[in-house]
Amino acid sequence: MARLPHDRMDLDDYRRAGHRMVDWIAEYRGGAGEHPVMARVEPGSVFDALPSEAPEDPETIDAILADVDSIVVPGLSHWQSPNWFAYFPANAAEASLLGDMLSTGLGVQGMLWSTSPACTEVEMRMLDWTARALGLPDAFRFDVDGPGGGVLQDTASSAVLACMIAARDRATGGRSGTHGLDQSTAPLVAYTSSQSHSSLEKAARLCGIGTDHLRLIEVDEAFAMRPDAFAARLHADLDAGAKPFFVNVTLGTTASGGFDPLPEIGRLAREHGLWVHVDAAMMGTAALCEEFRGMHAGIEHADSWNFNPHKWMGAAFDCSCLWLRETESLVSAMSIMPEYLRNRATDSGRVIDYRDWQIPLGRRFRALKLWFLYRGIGLAGLRTMVREHVRLATELEAWLDAEPRLESAAPRSLNMVCFRHVAGDDATRAMLHALNDSGDMSLTHCELDGRFVIRCCIGQWRTTMEHVRTAWDRIRLAARAVE
Amino acid sequence: MARLPHDRMDLDDYRRAGHRMVDWIAEYRGGAGEHPVMARVEPGSVFDALPSEAPEDPETIDAILADVDSIVVPGLSHWQSPNWFAYFPANAAEASLLGDMLSTGLGVQGMLWSTSPACTEVEMRMLDWTARALGLPDAFRFDVDGPGGGVLQDTASSAVLACMIAARDRATGGRSGTHGLDQSTAPLVAYTSSQSHSSLEKAARLCGIGTDHLRLIEVDEAFAMRPDAFAARLHADLDAGAKPFFVNVTLGTTASGGFDPLPEIGRLAREHGLWVHVDAAMMGTAALCEEFRGMHAGIEHADSWNFNPHKWMGAAFDCSCLWLRETESLVSAMSIMPEYLRNRATDSGRVIDYRDWQIPLGRRFRALKLWFLYRGIGLAGLRTMVREHVRLATELEAWLDAEPRLESAAPRSLNMVCFRHVAGDDATRAMLHALNDSGDMSLTHCELDGRFVIRCCIGQWRTTMEHVRTAWDRIRLAARAVE
Repeated sequence: MARLPHDRMDLDDYRRAGHRMVDWIAEYRGGAGEHPVMARVEPGSVFDALPSEAPEDPETIDAILADVDSIVVPGLSHWQSPNWFAYFPANAAEASLLGDMLSTGLGVQGMLWSTSPACTEVEMRMLDWTARALGLPDAFRFDVDGPGGGVLQDTASSAVLACMIAARDRATGGRSGTHGLDQSTAPLVAYTSSQSHSSLEKAARLCGIGTDHLRLIEVDEAFAMRPDAFAARLHADLDAGAKPFFVNVTLGTTASGGFDPLPEIGRLAREHGLWVHVDAAMMGTAALCEEFRGMHAGIEHADSWNFNPHKWMGAAFDCSCLWLRETESLVSAMSIMPEYLRNRATDSGRVIDYRDWQIPLGRRFRALKLWFLYRGIGLAGLRTMVREHVRLATELEAWLDAEPRLESAAPRSLNMVCFRHVAGDDATRAMLHALNDSGDMSLTHCELDGRFVIRCCIGQWRTTMEHVRTAWDRIRLAARAVE
Repeated sequence: MARLPHDRMDLDDYRRAGHRMVDWIAEYRGGAGEHPVMARVEPGSVFDALPSEAPEDPETIDAILADVDSIVVPGLSHWQSPNWFAYFPANAAEASLLGDMLSTGLGVQGMLWSTSPACTEVEMRMLDWTARALGLPDAFRFDVDGPGGGVLQDTASSAVLACMIAARDRATGGRSGTHGLDQSTAPLVAYTSSQSHSSLEKAARLCGIGTDHLRLIEVDEAFAMRPDAFAARLHADLDAGAKPFFVNVTLGTTASGGFDPLPEIGRLAREHGLWVHVDAAMMGTAALCEEFRGMHAGIEHADSWNFNPHKWMGAAFDCSCLWLRETESLVSAMSIMPEYLRNRATDSGRVIDYRDWQIPLGRRFRALKLWFLYRGIGLAGLRTMVREHVRLATELEAWLDAEPRLESAAPRSLNMVCFRHVAGDDATRAMLHALNDSGDMSLTHCELDGRFVIRCCIGQWRTTMEHVRTAWDRIRLAARAVE
């Protein structure tokens, strides 16, 4: 990195440093399975290893990469490791990396159509491609005439907040956005299951309806929302003069991969004018394969449908697909048009401005990640990956059933297996800590029926039968060791 | 991109394709000034140029890049062009590109400290580095003992929404997050100037206080908020039984770069317990240079301070710095702790979990962009760039003063010059369209004193005196042509 006029980096320097960085990333990824999966550093150690001030003068790429190796890498938990079974897979396929690199390199803003038309239109096409690949209804696509369409959000949390606000404003005829909310009398009330993601509670808090007005509906033995409990609560709220306006249906809960019954919940919710939001954040990916499209039953009731290609599917974070049956409610809730953003294209009404489909104003050219993913891997390749992960989870389930020290804690759901030690919570917790502390693999936990449970989510891009078999051997040994 | 087991891309393929992508980006950037600056495509043309379905099988990097050249590039407005004078500079310095590439390549999640400690701690250090580089108060840093600290947000819009929600919950003792808002009686009221960014109106709408409860305070002849008007409105609201809770102070308005008087507004606001938020989105960067730190006058009143390194400073989008004098209010408003996110590090109380400092749950390793920027360029280089842009704007201002067909529409503010045609709005508008349609440069407009005004923002990374002189020649010719 030589110094130049105004000290901007020279493009030849960038070229050389960029090649080094690509090689570094390839090497890191090739060896990602060799690091302790979960970081072992002490709080404050990375912070303390960095100087207290930025340098006055430029440094070389070698100096920076040396610090990446010695300071950053030991402080990482390695989400790209094939021994990653924690949380969810954060797959960032190499093909997607290239699209993201291009996005950053182009450095364009997609807040308005006019600020870079390709940024908007490639995104529209990628949402359509994805809707077709998953077998979603035509109504969600741009390439049919109609009021629907899709958009990329950063995360499912932002997507559900945006939809809850759109639903809130729809339910109040826009008054909640102008006059503000009045939750003291005839409050707006939202519904979700007790197993749904924490982002629902956060959304209820942030949008001003308040967590007191988010009903956590009981679940059945498969950890799916009970339609009878939903109906009872809805009617009780109506009788009490409240205004039910929103229901979230989870397809693949975070804890155990439970699927709420969308046909029943959706039908009742639509009868009463509620906005039906579907959170299929991780497991939505499975619909790439026809045999898993049973999850779409009842989709005709959904106002909004959300899943994260940045989880299982392989698009680098952040990349969350949100489709709307009619986009106008969202646009009405989010649209602000100051003079300095007015332009002839917007005024013509012939374009869409994605800034009105999201909370932030600025936006990256995120669609390139999806475009490169689809073209670099192909749909057939993505389906192969999904099927393989489900097959591995099925194997693990069978081994688990045959192991007397462990018991299943929930029905296997696609690529997710939940189990616990028969000796109780302390044993399960001790097992989990021992496995994570070993550095050999990563697992996380959840609570089901009041019990401490280990979740094993099989979805990392490079996880193979060998990794799962080794993981199982370690799990079995850990189960024996804690007795 | 050969096909492989499960059709994942091979790392050697990634290496080769990655090198090609780096070279492509270097070439694009070297020639960014040669494209028509603003895209000239028709609505729908990019969408129509893409097939209607994703491919079944993988394609080569050559095939994809050929489409980038023929479909995407003509559909871009080139924010990295040295002839970019529109909106704001979206500088993505090459050094920062490398950090972003690494972030995507590592593919880790920074939602919790434990999900990758380095992701949190490098970010903490980068916020401290930036606070020192700008000369912000010690209270905003982590490396002093105290309740303050900083965080990276995606955009200033998200930052102000997060702060408005934190202020809302602080003002209601948390009740707005649990019970929900009651804006019918004793409503919460926020303040900002009539020249502030549209994100304030959007935040008021989204957080549930409603735009009716956002007061747009009058500005003076320099388009800065009038403290007397603020005081009058505040007292009127108090007399009417409303609850003033938040004021936004803009340092560098979007339209003309106006600076609200923070000392006076801040003092009054703090006396009445309002949260004082500072939006220095673009111009905050100038404080890298000591001679521009006058903008920090009154900073002792600020509860939160926000600026975007992804604008003028050179960090690739998205990268918005938010500092808080006490972080607890924000964390209280945003924190949700479901069982599946509990972990020993969080329980120990010795770490911070940045997911509680933002709206989304997931987060990228954004701090790498800043780390590479500072180390690749050095603070001296960044200061040189800022000074050079301000010098160029000063030159432009002098030329403008000597041109009888044009008149200044606002005092020059650092790197921002606003002007209009003396013949009136139609002439100014015609000039703007002619200049943008020429493809030679980009400019945007605003409204000041009810008049149509052209903004010229000089801040693109590679803009030099030669580009500004050429731009000025074109502006002068356009001014003559519309007479």
